[in-house]
Amino acid sequence: MRQLDDTDLQILRLLLEDASRTYSDIAEIVDVSPPTVSDRIDRLREMGVIRRFTIDVDSSKLNDGVSVLVEAELSPTVDTDVVDRFAALEDVEHAFLTADSRVFIDANVPKGDVRELLAGGVDLDLVERFDVSLLVQSEWRPKVKDSDTDAELEQTVRQ
Amino acid sequence: MRQLDDTDLQILRLLLEDASRTYSDIAEIVDVSPPTVSDRIDRLREMGVIRRFTIDVDSSKLNDGVSVLVEAELSPTVDTDVVDRFAALEDVEHAFLTADSRVFIDANVPKGDVRELLAGGVDLDLVERFDVSLLVQSEWRPKVKDSDTDAELEQTVRQ
Amino acid sequence: MRQLDDTDLQILRLLLEDASRTYSDIAEIVDVSPPTVSDRIDRLREMGVIRRFTIDVDSSKLNDGVSVLVEAELSPTVDTDVVDRFAALEDVEHAFLTADSRVFIDANVPKGDVRELLAGGVDLDLVERFDVSLLVQSEWRPKVKDSDTDAELEQTVRQ
Amino acid sequence: MRQLDDTDLQILRLLLEDASRTYSDIAEIVDVSPPTVSDRIDRLREMGVIRRFTIDVDSSKLNDGVSVLVEAELSPTVDTDVVDRFAALEDVEHAFLTADSRVFIDANVPKGDVRELLAGGVDLDLVERFDVSLLVQSEWRPKVKDSDTDAELEQTVRQ
Amino acid sequence: MRQLDDTDLQILRLLLEDASRTYSDIAEIVDVSPPTVSDRIDRLREMGVIRRFTIDVDSSKLNDGVSVLVEAELSPTVDTDVVDRFAALEDVEHAFLTADSRVFIDANVPKGDVRELLAGGVDLDLVERFDVSLLVQSEWRPKVKDSDTDAELEQTVRQ
Amino acid sequence: MRQLDDTDLQILRLLLEDASRTYSDIAEIVDVSPPTVSDRIDRLREMGVIRRFTIDVDSSKLNDGVSVLVEAELSPTVDTDVVDRFAALEDVEHAFLTADSRVFIDANVPKGDVRELLAGGVDLDLVERFDVSLLVQSEWRPKVKDSDTDAELEQTVRQ
Amino acid sequence: MRQLDDTDLQILRLLLEDASRTYSDIAEIVDVSPPTVSDRIDRLREMGVIRRFTIDVDSSKLNDGVSVLVEAELSPTVDTDVVDRFAALEDVEHAFLTADSRVFIDANVPKGDVRELLAGGVDLDLVERFDVSLLVQSEWRPKVKDSDTDAELEQTVRQ
Amino acid sequence: MRQLDDTDLQILRLLLEDASRTYSDIAEIVDVSPPTVSDRIDRLREMGVIRRFTIDVDSSKLNDGVSVLVEAELSPTVDTDVVDRFAALEDVEHAFLTADSRVFIDANVPKGDVRELLAGGVDLDLVERFDVSLLVQSEWRPKVKDSDTDAELEQTVRQ
Repeated sequence: MRQLDDTDLQILRLLLEDASRTYSDIAEIVDVSPPTVSDRIDRLREMGVIRRFTIDVDSSKLNDGVSVLVEAELSPTVDTDVVDRFAALEDVEHAFLTADSRVFIDANVPKGDVRELLAGGVDLDLVERFDVSLLVQSEWRPKVKDSDTDAELEQTVRQ
Repeated sequence: MRQLDDTDLQILRLLLEDASRTYSDIAEIVDVSPPTVSDRIDRLREMGVIRRFTIDVDSSKLNDGVSVLVEAELSPTVDTDVVDRFAALEDVEHAFLTADSRVFIDANVPKGDVRELLAGGVDLDLVERFDVSLLVQSEWRPKVKDSDTDAELEQTVRQ
Repeated sequence: MRQLDDTDLQILRLLLEDASRTYSDIAEIVDVSPPTVSDRIDRLREMGVIRRFTIDVDSSKLNDGVSVLVEAELSPTVDTDVVDRFAALEDVEHAFLTADSRVFIDANVPKGDVRELLAGGVDLDLVERFDVSLLVQSEWRPKVKDSDTDAELEQTVRQ
Repeated sequence: MRQLDDTDLQILRLLLEDASRTYSDIAEIVDVSPPTVSDRIDRLREMGVIRRFTIDVDSSKLNDGVSVLVEAELSPTVDTDVVDRFAALEDVEHAFLTADSRVFIDANVPKGDVRELLAGGVDLDLVERFDVSLLVQSEWRPKVKDSDTDAELEQTVRQ
Repeated sequence: MRQLDDTDLQILRLLLEDASRTYSDIAEIVDVSPPTVSDRIDRLREMGVIRRFTIDVDSSKLNDGVSVLVEAELSPTVDTDVVDRFAALEDVEHAFLTADSRVFIDANVPKGDVRELLAGGVDLDLVERFDVSLLVQSEWRPKVKDSDTDAELEQTVRQ
Repeated sequence: MRQLDDTDLQILRLLLEDASRTYSDIAEIVDVSPPTVSDRIDRLREMGVIRRFTIDVDSSKLNDGVSVLVEAELSPTVDTDVVDRFAALEDVEHAFLTADSRVFIDANVPKGDVRELLAGGVDLDLVERFDVSLLVQSEWRPKVKDSDTDAELEQTVRQ
Repeated sequence: MRQLDDTDLQILRLLLEDASRTYSDIAEIVDVSPPTVSDRIDRLREMGVIRRFTIDVDSSKLNDGVSVLVEAELSPTVDTDVVDRFAALEDVEHAFLTADSRVFIDANVPKGDVRELLAGGVDLDLVERFDVSLLVQSEWRPKVKDSDTDAELEQTVRQ
Repeated sequence: MRQLDDTDLQILRLLLEDASRTYSDIAEIVDVSPPTVSDRIDRLREMGVIRRFTIDVDSSKLNDGVSVLVEAELSPTVDTDVVDRFAALEDVEHAFLTADSRVFIDANVPKGDVRELLAGGVDLDLVERFDVSLLVQSEWRPKVKDSDTDAELEQTVRQ
C-alpha cells in the first residue's frame, strides 16, 4: 500500500482542471522539477488513480434527442456484469449499479424512445420494471480532497 | 448553426480515448494536417463542444468511504440552481436534476454518513425525502456517434 | 329527460369522423331530410351533447418541445377549480382530475422544463409532489355506442 | 421543411374555437381573401397539422357509467402497438403511452367494471398491474401558440 | 322500478337500530298500522333491500387473536369470484374487491399468522403481494339517507 | 373472565343467520328450554358479545352513487378518535383504523365526489393523502368458530 | 402457567446489565439468599425465559465491511422456514420475518456486496425484490418491565 | 491499531455460545492457560469488542402483547440522536437508524397500540410517516468469522 502525498493530490487537482497544462506549468505551481511531475504522473497512472487523459464533452451540443435518466429494476437473480451491457448502449454516458440490483443510466435518446434504446443491447426479460425521468441538468464535478484534513486514511491508495 | 463534419467527430473520439495524443498523432490518423487538427480543436472549444481537457480519476482509489447514490426529492417550489449546491458538496462527483424536482448524486462518503454530507451545503428543509443506495459499480462511457447514420440531425450543433 | 334515438347517434358518429360534411351529405346517409339533420344538430348543441365544432390538430407538428404526461398530487385541502388552472397552462392540451386529488395533464413542453410550465399558472404550494413521464404516443378515439346493445340506459341524456 | 406564418396560426386558432365558421368569416377576421383561407386550410390538412374537422362531444351526457382513469403498467417486453389495442377498447376515449411502458386511458365504464373493459381487447398477461382512479373532471384545451414569442422554432413544421 | 317512500326509509332506520322491535312498536313510531309495517318489511325483503335479520357481534370478545386488515394485490388475470374464497376464509369477517383487482379483508387471526389464514382457502399463486396492517379499531355504521334531500334518485331501487 | 360454552356459540350462529327466529325455534335446535335461550341471549348482550339486533341492508339498492373504498393516511400526530368522525360521515358504512394511522372506509358516494364526502365532517388538514378505489364487490361473512377446535382460548371472553 | 414475581424480574434486569455478577452479588441486591438466586435462575432457564448467557459484541470492531439493513420481499408462496436460511447467512446478525412475507436482516458486508451475501444461502428465485439501506447506528436495549404497573398480565409466562 | 488473533476469535465464539463458562473451561478448549484467557477477555473488554456479559431473554415469554416491526420515516432535518429516543421506548428491544433517516424498531406492544408506544418518548412531529408490520419470527445469530479466510482485514480492530 503506497501513499499519496500533497504533491500528488495537487497535481491531480491541476490536471482535473486542465489536462492540457504542460509539465513545466505544473512544476512551477507545485514547486517541484518538471521531471518530478512526469514521474509522479506516471506513477499515478500505474496505480490506476489516473485512468486516462480525456476531454469533457457537452453531449447536449452533439445530440438532438431527449436527455433522460433511466432507473431499471433488475431481477434479483441477474448477473452483475449486466451493468456493462447498459453502459455499452449507444446514447448512454454513465451507468450505476446499486447493491439492490438497480441500474441507473443517463442517456440522450432520439425522440425519447427508451424502450428501443434498451432493446438495443439488454435482455428485457431481466428488467422487472423501469422508470424514465426527464433530465434538465447534469453536473460533473470530480474533486480531490485535501490531505491535511482527517487525512491519513483519505490518502491511502487501496490496490 | 454550424455543422460538425466527420473529421470533427473523429477528433472528438480520439481525444475522449486519450487526450494526451499530440496534434501530429491525431493528424496522421485523421489524415489532415496538424494545423487543421489544431484549428478544429480550437473551434470545438469555442463552440463549447469540448468543455475542457481533463483526467478520468478512479475516486475509489483516493477515498476510503462508502460509495452511494442518493436520490433527493425536492419541494416543488425549490429553485432550480439547487443542483449546483448538491454538485458542490464535498465527496460528490455527479449531480443530475430531473424535470420532477429530484436530484441524484453519486458520492464516496466517509462512514456512509449521508446526512452529514448533505448538511454540508444543502438546506435540508428543501428536501422532502431522500433515499440512499449502496453503489457497487460506476461506469463512464462517453460516446460520439457516427455521422453517417441517421446523421444530419445528430451533427447539428445547437448554440 | 329527453332521449337520443338512433338517428341522433348516427349523426354524432358522422360528425366525429368529419364535421365538414354538409347537412345534405349527412341527410342522405342517415336517410332523413336536410332540415331534420339541421334540427337534430341544433338540439344536440342545446342539450350540450355537442359542445362545439372544432378541428383535431397534430400538436407535435406545431411544437418542437418534449411531450410529457405530468401527474401532480395535490393537497387534500385544495379547491376543485384547480384543474382549470392546470388546463389553462400554455402547452397543456388535456387535464384530468381524479377523486383523490391528483391532476394528470399532457403537454408539449419546450426543453422539457415542466417546472417552468407549472409555475406559469399554478400555485406550487398546492402541489405535494409531481411526476413527469415522457410521452411516446397519444391516441384520441371518441366513440358513440350503438343504441341497440344494452341500450335504453346508454341513450338517456342526463341534464 | 415548410414554415407556418401568423396567418396560419390565426386560422388554426379560429377553427379550434369554432370549425363551423365560413371561409368568409375567417377571411374577414384574418384580413385575407376567402380563397387564401381555403388554400391555407388545404395546405394545413396536407401537412397533417389539421388531422380532421370534428366535434367535441360531452360523453358524460351520452353514457351512464363511471368515468375512470386507468394506469396500466405493461411488461417491459411488450410491443409498442399495444397502445392501439387500449385505444380501440369500447368506452375508451384517450390513450397515452409513456416511455416507461405505462398506458393511461380514460373511459366511461358501465358499473365501473374495468376488468371487463380491459378483457375486451387487451391480453391481460401483458399487464403487470393496473390502477383505477375515479375521474371527477376532464378538460380538453387545445392551444396554438403565438408566433411572435421565442417563435422561429415553434412554427417550424417537422415532416 | 319501484320506489321507496319515507315510511320505508323510517322502518329501515328503526330496524338497523334495533331489529328486535315489535311491529307494533314500529307502527306506533312511524304512525301506520302494524299490518302495514309487516307488509312493508315483507316487500323490502322481497326487493332484496333487507337481506336478513341478524345480530352485530363484537368478534374481539369471541377471539383471542390479532385483528388485521390484509390487502392482497391479485394478478390482473384472476377470476372475479376470488373474493368469495377470501370471504369464506375462517377468521375473515368482511371482504372487499376493488376494480383494480385488490382484495381487502379484515380478520382476527390467531397469533397473527396471516399466511396460514390465506393458505387455508386461497391459491397463493394468484396473490402478487400482500400487505398486513394491524387493526386498532373497526366501526360499522350503516345509514339510511333521508328522502327529502336531493331525494328522488336516492330512493329509486334498482332491480 | 366468564366462558362461552357450545350452547352460546350455537345460539350466536343461529342469530347471525336469522335474528328473527323465535326463542322456541332456537331452543328446539339447540336442545335447551326457551327460557334458557332467553337467559343466554340476555347474558351475551350484557357481556357485549351481542351488540344489537339489526338488519343487513343492501345499500347498493338504496343509493345510486359510486361504491368506493377510501384509504386516508393521517398525520402521525392525529387523535385516535378521528375514526369516529370518518365513520359518522354520511354515505360511509364501515371504518377501519390501523396501527399506522391509516383509515379505510367504504362508502356509496353520489357522483363519486369523495372530497365532498370527506369535507363533510373530517378536518382535511389531518389527511396527509388519500387514495380512492372503485369497489366492485363487498362481502360480510361474520363467523363464530366451533369450540371444539383449539378451543379453550377462543371461547374466553375478554372483558 | 407459572408466574414471575418481582424477584424474578429484578434478577433478569441485573443479569441483562451484567451477567458476570456472582450469585452473592445478586442475592445482596435483591435481598434473598444466594441459593434462592441460583434456584430462580435455573427455573428461568428451564422456562425458556433465559435462553443463554452470552456477550454483547460490537461487530463493527470485528469487521471492516459496510453495515446494511436488507429488506427482502418474498414470494407469497414461500415456506416460513426461509427466515432460518437468512439468519444463517455469514455476516448476518439478526433476521426478522413479518406476517406479509418480508424478511429484514442486518449484516456487516465486505465491500457492500449484498447480492453475494444473499446468494450464499438463499434461493434468489424466492426473493421478489430486495432493498438495501445503509445502517448508521444499531441499538440493542432489552428491557424487563416492572411488575407493579398494569402488571398481572405482563408477568404471566406463556408456555 | 491492534490485532485480534485466532485465540481471541475462538474465545469470543465460546462466550457468545455460553458466557457462563469458566476461564478454566475456555482455557482447556483453546489450549492456553486460564490467566491468558482472563487477560485476553480483559483486553477485549477494554477494546470495546466485548461490550458486556448479558443474557439472551425470550421476551415473548415475558410479554403478552403483539410483536411488531415499526419503520418510521423521519424528517431529513432530524437530529441523529433520535435513535436513542426510539431505543429507550418501553417495549422496544432493537433500534436501527439508516443513512436515509429511517428508524426500524422491533417491539412487543400491548394491544398493538403503536401510536401510544411512540408517543411515550418520541416527538411525533419528527415522524413523517410510519409503517407497522406484524412480526412472526425474530432470530439473533451473532457470528465471529474465522481468521484464516480472507482474514487479515477482518481481524483488524478499528479504534
